[in-house]
Amino acid sequence: MDYPDVLAWRGGQIEALDQTALPHQIRTLRITTVDELVDAITSLAIRGAPVLGAAGALGVALAVRQGLGEGWDGARLDAEIARIAAARPTAVNLSREVTAVAAVAGSGAAAVEAAALAVLDATAATSYQISERGAAFLVEACGAGPLRVHTHCNTGSLACLGWGTALGVIRALHAGGALGHVIVDETRPLLQGARLTCWELGRLGIEHQLACDGAAPFLISRGHADAVVVGADRIAANGDVANKIGTYSLALAARQAGIPFLVAAPESTIDPATPDGAAIPIEQRPDEEVAAPAAPAGTRALNLAFDITPAELVTAVVTEDRLIRRGQWSTGGGARGSAGSAGR
Amino acid sequence: MDYPDVLAWRGGQIEALDQTALPHQIRTLRITTVDELVDAITSLAIRGAPVLGAAGALGVALAVRQGLGEGWDGARLDAEIARIAAARPTAVNLSREVTAVAAVAGSGAAAVEAAALAVLDATAATSYQISERGAAFLVEACGAGPLRVHTHCNTGSLACLGWGTALGVIRALHAGGALGHVIVDETRPLLQGARLTCWELGRLGIEHQLACDGAAPFLISRGHADAVVVGADRIAANGDVANKIGTYSLALAARQAGIPFLVAAPESTIDPATPDGAAIPIEQRPDEEVAAPAAPAGTRALNLAFDITPAELVTAVVTEDRLIRRGQWSTGGGARGSAGSAGR
Repeated sequence: MDYPDVLAWRGGQIEALDQTALPHQIRTLRITTVDELVDAITSLAIRGAPVLGAAGALGVALAVRQGLGEGWDGARLDAEIARIAAARPTAVNLSREVTAVAAVAGSGAAAVEAAALAVLDATAATSYQISERGAAFLVEACGAGPLRVHTHCNTGSLACLGWGTALGVIRALHAGGALGHVIVDETRPLLQGARLTCWELGRLGIEHQLACDGAAPFLISRGHADAVVVGADRIAANGDVANKIGTYSLALAARQAGIPFLVAAPESTIDPATPDGAAIPIEQRPDEEVAAPAAPAGTRALNLAFDITPAELVTAVVTEDRLIRRGQWSTGGGARGSAGSAGR
Repeated sequence: MDYPDVLAWRGGQIEALDQTALPHQIRTLRITTVDELVDAITSLAIRGAPVLGAAGALGVALAVRQGLGEGWDGARLDAEIARIAAARPTAVNLSREVTAVAAVAGSGAAAVEAAALAVLDATAATSYQISERGAAFLVEACGAGPLRVHTHCNTGSLACLGWGTALGVIRALHAGGALGHVIVDETRPLLQGARLTCWELGRLGIEHQLACDGAAPFLISRGHADAVVVGADRIAANGDVANKIGTYSLALAARQAGIPFLVAAPESTIDPATPDGAAIPIEQRPDEEVAAPAAPAGTRALNLAFDITPAELVTAVVTEDRLIRRGQWSTGGGARGSAGSAGR
């Protein structure tokens, strides 16, 4: 691959590409304590739901190692592991992988490291499967192309290891000769689309254009895209999707334009314990992320990190195991409202 | 008023508040040539459809004065006036006011100056009438409040003289004790909402919160606003509305949420010569406005300055003379599609 490791375990440390420094600097963080890991997650140096899960898994290994060095008792270890799990509240992957790896903590440090590394391998493998299945769905839904695909935020290797989820689908279309070009939302306030997705697509030699988030629905209405593909941070049992703020507007526009709105995410993103979107906690982030530096000092902001797209607006969810079309969710996303004209 | 003149004619020069310097600097441009005026319009130092019209009117007076000083013949004067009219293509106000004032050029410099100053006065007076009528409509549609209003871009004194159009409606609600608070889209790429609207609302002591453009449709879906109010750069004969990019997504969201979507604009914005939105030219601006500084160097962008909102998504248009509800346009915006559930 043409870019450095996104996440690795070397010499009892976590190595993570600092995603706040991209695209202008390539900087690797060497993380040796739970405090440093929580900081890296909170500051979004490590980000993207699947990578957060993998980082959480490595975090348990890190906590066990730090605990051995500092003589923590079981309660302290549990508390430190809980801090990792809670570092960001919306993506279910983080707490799930932390919990899974923490379950083997009683078997010793070597077992924990092996379990954490298995999470990394599985995360990458999962992304290839999602990518291939999602690309096949889009070719089925839209024809052999060349397809013009609209996407949001960053869902590539940087977020997912391997090929990615939504960006993995785009990469699989490209590999199969079915991709025309990609329109990338800049993804305010933190500009993951402009900074990270454009960087990845540039490295991959995939033609792309950047657009403002507010422009995206109009571009879709004018026929600039054949499909919209996004990732997910959590999917409720009824198929409602939590994803980066700005996703809901794309889904509304895709329905209005009659083009597919595809969500690409690992099975681990689906949370059967969350009945619907209303039950998903939405992280509120600082005012300054939106207001500074353009607005007058002291301007307050409504800065939600995620939004909820109702299942009725989602044409299909693709995972490593299956394709779930609108109306196929057990508690019936498709059965509860007007589905409109989407879903060709 | 607590802020400096937006636009004035003093000593044979145009004085204009440099809107690219706000909110952190208050700087007045003194414009003495057509070249300087075209630069100020192109760079968005002077902006907002009604202010562009007033600046165009003063521009004719400036051209006449410059022509007398430099000995231009009639053809040269016509060419210079045409350059002013064409400095930005989307807002009809600019070319219309230039044409109107140019019609008296044969009567001498004093007549031209008087005609141009009359445009300034009429522009401010118009904005008060729009503001009062728009506020009355929202109180009728939503109740006595306190109303929570979502708006986009900048449509206040800075754009319109007087009170403004959409922001004038908000100001009239505030004056009448019917306003709760305002949610302001930051309005990428040039951040007129963050820079200018937050500055005006702050000066007026009106409570407000800033939001990312991509967040707006979700915030509307979650009940954060009782109404959406925006301005317009051009309204076609069938009621289709050209306005700052990002407007269409608000209209889609307002319809989905069942709240009014009000367009506030002077009669001069309505262009009977343009049959529908498809006939409105949309200005494409430089890639760098979107891509720099976050995206990798050389990233291309799709940077449309305006979008088109179909008449069927517009609950009403309010002008200084009348309220035009959906379905009342002569060529039938309301008659050509599914109107949905908006318009309570």
